[in-house]
Order: sequence, then structure tokens, then C-alpha cells
Amino acid sequence: MPERRHLISIADLTAGDVERLLTTAEALADAGPLDALRGRTVVNLFYESSTRTSSSFELAARRLGAATLTIRSAGSSVDKGESLKDTVLTLSAYDPDVIVVRHPHAGAPELVARHTDAHVVNAGDGKRQHPTQALLDLFTMRSALGRLEGLHVAIVGDVLHSRVARSLVQALALVGARATFVGPPTLLPRGLDVPMSSDIAAIGAADVVYVLRMQRERMEAGAAYVPSLREYAARWGVTPERLRPGQRVMHPGPMNRGVEIDARVADSTAALVVDQVRAGLTVRMAVLLEAVGVDLAVEVA
Amino acid sequence: MPERRHLISIADLTAGDVERLLTTAEALADAGPLDALRGRTVVNLFYESSTRTSSSFELAARRLGAATLTIRSAGSSVDKGESLKDTVLTLSAYDPDVIVVRHPHAGAPELVARHTDAHVVNAGDGKRQHPTQALLDLFTMRSALGRLEGLHVAIVGDVLHSRVARSLVQALALVGARATFVGPPTLLPRGLDVPMSSDIAAIGAADVVYVLRMQRERMEAGAAYVPSLREYAARWGVTPERLRPGQRVMHPGPMNRGVEIDARVADSTAALVVDQVRAGLTVRMAVLLEAVGVDLAVEVA
Amino acid sequence: MPERRHLISIADLTAGDVERLLTTAEALADAGPLDALRGRTVVNLFYESSTRTSSSFELAARRLGAATLTIRSAGSSVDKGESLKDTVLTLSAYDPDVIVVRHPHAGAPELVARHTDAHVVNAGDGKRQHPTQALLDLFTMRSALGRLEGLHVAIVGDVLHSRVARSLVQALALVGARATFVGPPTLLPRGLDVPMSSDIAAIGAADVVYVLRMQRERMEAGAAYVPSLREYAARWGVTPERLRPGQRVMHPGPMNRGVEIDARVADSTAALVVDQVRAGLTVRMAVLLEAVGVDLAVEVA
Repeated sequence: MPERRHLISIADLTAGDVERLLTTAEALADAGPLDALRGRTVVNLFYESSTRTSSSFELAARRLGAATLTIRSAGSSVDKGESLKDTVLTLSAYDPDVIVVRHPHAGAPELVARHTDAHVVNAGDGKRQHPTQALLDLFTMRSALGRLEGLHVAIVGDVLHSRVARSLVQALALVGARATFVGPPTLLPRGLDVPMSSDIAAIGAADVVYVLRMQRERMEAGAAYVPSLREYAARWGVTPERLRPGQRVMHPGPMNRGVEIDARVADSTAALVVDQVRAGLTVRMAVLLEAVGVDLAVEVA
Repeated sequence: MPERRHLISIADLTAGDVERLLTTAEALADAGPLDALRGRTVVNLFYESSTRTSSSFELAARRLGAATLTIRSAGSSVDKGESLKDTVLTLSAYDPDVIVVRHPHAGAPELVARHTDAHVVNAGDGKRQHPTQALLDLFTMRSALGRLEGLHVAIVGDVLHSRVARSLVQALALVGARATFVGPPTLLPRGLDVPMSSDIAAIGAADVVYVLRMQRERMEAGAAYVPSLREYAARWGVTPERLRPGQRVMHPGPMNRGVEIDARVADSTAALVVDQVRAGLTVRMAVLLEAVGVDLAVEVA
Repeated sequence: MPERRHLISIADLTAGDVERLLTTAEALADAGPLDALRGRTVVNLFYESSTRTSSSFELAARRLGAATLTIRSAGSSVDKGESLKDTVLTLSAYDPDVIVVRHPHAGAPELVARHTDAHVVNAGDGKRQHPTQALLDLFTMRSALGRLEGLHVAIVGDVLHSRVARSLVQALALVGARATFVGPPTLLPRGLDVPMSSDIAAIGAADVVYVLRMQRERMEAGAAYVPSLREYAARWGVTPERLRPGQRVMHPGPMNRGVEIDARVADSTAALVVDQVRAGLTVRMAVLLEAVGVDLAVEVA
């Protein structure tokens, strides 16, 4: 990571950075309670609701002994019209070590970084990046399949609006894996150097089928992206019939069972969804440690 | 408690279990800060709003040194339509020791228990059970009256919709006490083996008058359960005039002063309402300790 | 402070109390993590939303090692119509050491104090008092200007509705400083023994220009306090052109940039806004320590 050790985009990382983070996360998965961040403060600044990601960051910080302060937009100064800049200046007065930020606008984490001395971790900005999700996905794949290099991952669904897909495809490239986008033509992006297919059968060629969440608002009348929830499920839903033996299935959650993923797939041993959540905790602990500059090797030894 | 040590219903408990839990709670009331649950994680999963119960469980967990994670339905994945099953699978990936769950549907805690290795504590499910409330009520009665066996408790008000009443009547039976339901015929349940009366004077025979909260929506036009708030207070409100000297009054809170309970009663020395809240903290600490299998005797010694 | 050591109004304090609190806060600014309040419980009871003040009190309590419990009106028993008195009786059953309360009604903290054994700290009540804000403002002025005695502070804007102004003017008098109110005649209070001016040029005579937040609802059609947001900014906004070299500018936040304060002023070295936030943390730590009766000298030595 660069000198300031922000984590804003997968593009900030080298292959070596990824390797180091995953190795640290692996060590953390086996470690007991650590006090590596005792006396440190982690601020979570969430302008979009998210149980999954915010609780994962909160727990990661607490398991390392840090004090946490979580600010959600509802009921906060945000509602009083305060600018993001002033909110960051205010929070920075408490000398936090890390600010974790989720925001509906792409680029918000850079704005945060300009106005704080804290290390900034992007927990999702608009349709652009969600780097810790991509890292936890790599961690999960490596644990389940024993390797990353040469893996082929089919990313299925609403790729167009997905920051998860954008981050993941960069992360896969970094470790020598490759991606194919599969989905309705209306939901595939243009201008990206990634193979694409609008035939669901294309998932058969992949080692991992990565199913994106279908946002319900895309399926509502007038949205015009997909004709109906029912038709989407019929044409693009990942069912047992569409999978080959040995393929693994991932999903960033929360799942719409019966829409983008069949309940039988979600509950099968092929699914790595719970592994992803568990990986999220350890990978975020690793990211917090690196952000603050703590060398785990010293702590554990 | 059964081998998994869930606490889902009073029906899961024997008289010996109750005795042991109350004894542990008594020891905890006098104990200083404990670290018995250091390194443990307690998840509170609340699908219904509740300051009183959720803060009581949170404090109980923190006073024992556990890390807590509280998920409320508002603003959480729940709003994104995720199933309870998937929420539990997700949370379980963090390896919590205990999941405390409140849910509007009866039976939700069993569903939670099927999808987690954590110990499950029911903090209220639909109109069915609220076992820690019943335990804290027993604790309060025993502290105030010196015994449980042979006590007569009149449970007054909207018994029909009350999980508190359902749990309490089972708990009283377990310890050799007995209950009478008192309230308007429209708000008394059928088919239960409990004496009932629609004459408020019936509370005169009881050692303890347990006043249930009147849900305001029951009194609104069209609900047809009670004619009006004013008439309910006149006919069923617990006033000083309706009490005998020496009777004790309880209420699970929050109270509607001037409706089901007269303010003079609420503020009198007969009222045990604050004792109930205090008991809630120590009883829940006892329940968490048992759930996790910690023997307090060892900790305190 | 009086024997019960509540902090409800600046009027409760002597000049000696203020001096002692500011000195303690100074010591805390340089101290490392303290465990002075380990085993203590601080309850934050917020009936008005406030990220800034509630997070400041939460962090202050946690940095001293206290357990915190924060109750916000949204989604709490408050919504179920429970009286403030019963909420306080309930929370007091947990034996908290301190209850911090913010409430839209003046006098609410006294009501809280009548029903609890905890020490009560007023975090803002109606249009009346916000004593910790006044203390942090004194702290900030003393740090930046080296003294308080003889300082002249121009308080600019909606003085009429401001508890910040009411507290600050009392606090300034206590330490030998003086205030002038500057603002539109419709937004200046009557009957206070403070010099007032409706000419923005009056700020030129002050050492510190203290800019109050303009509540947006005052500027809406029909409110009649000020003609329009644009006209308010033009006539009363604090701009670089209206300041003398060497003057310092303060604002309790959150700022409306471009309304009561020009962005160039907010971002200039004259502005002490971030210093105020930082001072808020240490001053509140000092207030909590005093409330509980902990002598820092002993702790640090």
C-alpha cells in the first residue's frame, strides 16, 4: 500500500500487498483475542445502510481491542445538511487512527482522505469500489480451492451497477486469475476489457460462479433493466441444473433466494457464502492492522 | 436446561433449573465487575424495537466482559428482504457464543437455533414466550416476599395478546405458585387451565397484582377490544382503592400511567417496577453465564 | 459544583469550579488512555438527535474506561409514550454513575435529577442551557488566546433561540470576559443585560467572533425571522471582509457554509472550529471525572 496506507481502491495494491494481507488474515483466523489496537480509535462513517459490512468492521476493530465509533447518516449531523468535509474535520478532531467510510458517491473516500490524518478504508463508494469485499473474496477462493492463479470466475447478474464486480475483476487480475461477466445485455457494462456473455450456460466454464445480488428496484415496473423478477429467475438464476460438479458458488449477500440464486444452491456444500462472511472479519482485521502500521508478526511472537 | 442450553421457552426449564438461575442471579447482584465472558461475543438480534429488553441484555453482556453486537431490523439487511435464516447464517460466521433474538413471529427462536451453533436466548417471540421476563418476575417476587411457593398472582389486563402472561403463568406453576387472569372478556384467552375473572375486585385475593401493559392500538377506534381508553381505566385500572394493604404491584413496563395503572400506585412502595428492571439485569447475566456453560462458583471463588 | 455534582447550568458553577475543570481538561489532553472510570456506567439519554454531542460524550466515557449505554428517542420506549420520569426510574435501576441528558424541553435535566441517584449532566435542554458547550468554548479560547479575562466575544446570529449563547454569556461573565450580541433585531433576545447591536460591523470590536448556527426552519417561508437565506448571508454572514486581522472565529457546528459563515473563513487559520471539537472531548472527560468524584491528580500520579 502507498505510504499513507489508505485502502481506497484495489488499484492501490500490488500483488505483493494482496499476498501479505491474505497471509496476515490467515494468521488472524487462528489467533486468539489480540490487543494489537488497544488505545486506538476506529470511526465507521456509513452514509448507506449496511448491517453486514458495518458489523464486520465493528467486530474486526473490537476483536483487536480498538475503541469504535459508528456514525450512520440517519439521525446524524448529516441530516442537518453538514458537508462531508466538515463531518470529517469534526471526526478527525478526535484523532481517530482509521476512518472506514461507505458513501453513495464514487470518490467520497478520496475527499475524506484529503481532510484527515487518519488512514481511510473504503467500505464501498457508489458503483465504483468495495476493496475489502474483493480481498475477502480472494481469501475465500484461496482457502476453498487452494490457489488463485489460473482460476476462472464467472461473475453473474447485474454487473453494470456493481462495485463488487468492479473491485473483484481488478483483484483477480492482480493474482493471475480471470473473470467472465455473464448477464442480460442491459446489465453488462461497456468498454471493459473483460469477456462477456449473455448466455447463462457460459458459467459452465468457470471454477467459481460469483452471483451478484439483484437489486429489487431494477426489477420494478418502469426500470426496464429486466422484464420481471420471475423471468429474471428463469433465465439468469443460478440453479443446481446449471452447475457442474465441483464448481463453487459465491455471493456477497444479502441473497434473494429464488431470484438470482436457487435456495438449493445456497444451501449446498458448493456454496461458500458463510465462508465469505467469516473471511470478511479476518481480512478486515488484517486491513486495520496494516492501516495502522502494526506488524502482526511482532504481536503474535 | 437441555444440553444445548438454549432458553426459548419456560417449558424448557425444570424447577431445579429455575432455582439454580435465581441463585446465580442473587450472587451476581452482590458481585463486583466480572470478566467471566471476556473474549466471548453476544449478538442481539432485535426485529421489534425495545429499549428496555435490548439495553438490559447489552448491559448484562458487557458487565460480564463480553463483546456485544446489536442488530436492529431498521436500517439492516432485514430491510433488504434477507431471510431470517440467512441473517442467522451470516451472523453465525462470526462464531458468537450467544444469539439473543426478539421477533414478531412465534417460533422464530427455534428457527434461529436450527441454523447456528450459538446458544439461543428468546427475548420475546410474537404472543408466545418471553422467558427472561418471567424469570426476572420470579426473582423480584422472591426478593420482595421471601418465597414463591403458595403465592397467588393476579395477572390483569390484556392477557390475550401477552407473551409476558403466557410465560409467567408457566413459571409460576413450576415453582408452586398460582395465577388468576383478570380482565375484560374480550381480552382473556380461551382454553387455558387458569382461573379467570372479569371482575376487577378479583385482584383482592392475590398476593401480587401483575398489571399488563395496554397496547394503545387495542384501544383505537375499530379495534373493538375495549370501548375507550377512558372506560378501560375506569373499569380495569389498578388504583389505590382497589388494592388491599400489603399487596405488591408489578408491571413489565413501559407503563401507561392513568390507563392500566394509577400514578399513585406506580409511585407507591407497593410497586416493584424498578426492582423488576434491576432483576432483569442480574437474571440476564445468569442466563448468559449458563448458556455459555460458565460456572459462577468457580469464577467468584 | 454543588454537593451532588450535577452539571445542569453554568449558574451552578463558581469561577473556581471553571478553573479547576479547565485545568483537569488540560491535563487530560496530554494523558494517555486512563482507566479512571473502569467499572462505572455512563448512560446517554438523547431526546434530540445529535451526532456531535452524543459521540463526544460516548468517546469521553470510553476513553476513561466506563461502560456506556446510549438511548435515543427514535425506536425506544419513548415512542411507546413512556414518561421521562419512568424512563429515568428504569435506567436508574441499572445504577448508572452518570446520566447525560439532552431534551427539547428546558428543565428536563432537573426532572431527571429528581428521580435518580446518578450524577446528571445537561447536554442541552430546550433553548436554555448547554453547559459543556460553554466550557469547551472557554477552553478553546484560553488555549488559542492565552487568557480569558478581559476578552470580548461577539456572538452573532440567532441569539434568541440559542441555548449555546445563553450558556456562553454566563460562562464568559464568570471568568471576567464579556459578550456582545450581534444579529437581526428579530433574532435578538429582550431583557438580558448584554450589549446588543444589529450592525454586523459591530463584530470588528471583538477578540473572538462566535458564529451561531442558523436553523434552516427559521429561514423558511412563513417563519418571518429572516427574509431569505440569501439575504441573511449577505447581511449577517461572517466573511473575510468583515473580519480584522488577528480576530478568531468560533462556531458550535454543524456549520452552514455560505450562510452564517463564509467557506473562506471556515477554512482559514482564524477558525477554531476543529479545536472546539477536540476541546469538547477533553472537557467532557473532565466533567465526567468530577461528576463521579475522581481526582485526576491521584490517577495520573
